[in-house]
Amino acid sequence: MSTLFNQTDRTTPTRSAERLAYDRAPAFQVLDEALFCDVAFTGPDGAPRILPTFHARVGSTVYFHGSTGSSMGLAAREGLDVCLTATIVDGLVFAKSWFHHSMNYRSVVVHGRAALVTDAHERWLMMRALVERMSTGRSERSREPSAKEDSATAIMALPLEEASVKRRGGPPSEDPDDEGLPYRNGVAEVTTTVAGRL
Amino acid sequence: MSTLFNQTDRTTPTRSAERLAYDRAPAFQVLDEALFCDVAFTGPDGAPRILPTFHARVGSTVYFHGSTGSSMGLAAREGLDVCLTATIVDGLVFAKSWFHHSMNYRSVVVHGRAALVTDAHERWLMMRALVERMSTGRSERSREPSAKEDSATAIMALPLEEASVKRRGGPPSEDPDDEGLPYRNGVAEVTTTVAGRL
Repeated sequence: MSTLFNQTDRTTPTRSAERLAYDRAPAFQVLDEALFCDVAFTGPDGAPRILPTFHARVGSTVYFHGSTGSSMGLAAREGLDVCLTATIVDGLVFAKSWFHHSMNYRSVVVHGRAALVTDAHERWLMMRALVERMSTGRSERSREPSAKEDSATAIMALPLEEASVKRRGGPPSEDPDDEGLPYRNGVAEVTTTVAGRL
Repeated sequence: MSTLFNQTDRTTPTRSAERLAYDRAPAFQVLDEALFCDVAFTGPDGAPRILPTFHARVGSTVYFHGSTGSSMGLAAREGLDVCLTATIVDGLVFAKSWFHHSMNYRSVVVHGRAALVTDAHERWLMMRALVERMSTGRSERSREPSAKEDSATAIMALPLEEASVKRRGGPPSEDPDDEGLPYRNGVAEVTTTVAGRL
């Protein structure tokens, strides 16, 4: 498998192209680190919807969680065109000008068709992956789903084919003319910690 | 002004209704605390798009940042139907069963039509609000935008009218039959910290 995603029209930016990449490894890392993702789809009225949800990446597929009763769960029986994003904020970037204030971040955008996972074994594996991602080994320190619980859970699969990763890192950009301004600049680090995983 | 948002079809859930509310105050608080939001819109091909971006709430409007050259910036000249979400993860919820594993979170979903802010003074105020949200007083510790910088920045306004806030807090739910299982349960707290704002 290529280490790169294939670039398409909708993963080609109209600006800040230098921040965008098509490498699988950093995209996978963002998906593995992010504590939630947002899934957008088009509602029955043609307007966009977003569902924040929890996800797990397994190989080149991202699985996310829904409910069989939700509007997305129902729509996904036929396959559902979605855009999925996961973002990690790494820093607040303070520049000498308002204009150059920014964020350090890593963000993945995935386009594609999500489908309900119907195979019983694949569903079990994916539910396990979701629990394992909360804490390594947790699937063995908790009870597996009953048939009733299984049937109440919708697991959607989205292939990681049309995707990109965007990133900003490092110190603020500055306008050369601003160098002499008496303002401090730099990056305030943003850290997310999880205390006491079980 | 009512303390509640008006409920509409698309802010009415098909499940977990007990987690959903239409109160302005907690919705505003989530928007004020979140370090980014996701904005979904429908692309020219009819498929959904998401743009992660930075935002500031001022009164009953959420302003978010774009670029005049981006596809969204261009589309928003005419007004653009969007769905905007901001989510804060407060905890990982470990239950005795896989099924009851969950997250503690607070999440806002806003539906509406976003429009480019064209009034020069409103634009200046909103750019200031974005910078101030990164650190109180920062707009006075950095240089205001030049005319050229101003014209390169797209500020979109989305009215906070059709919105809802979803929340889960507290300990894991458990199936009564699981009480005797020898597994630990509880919540691992998730905290996001910003070190060294300037």
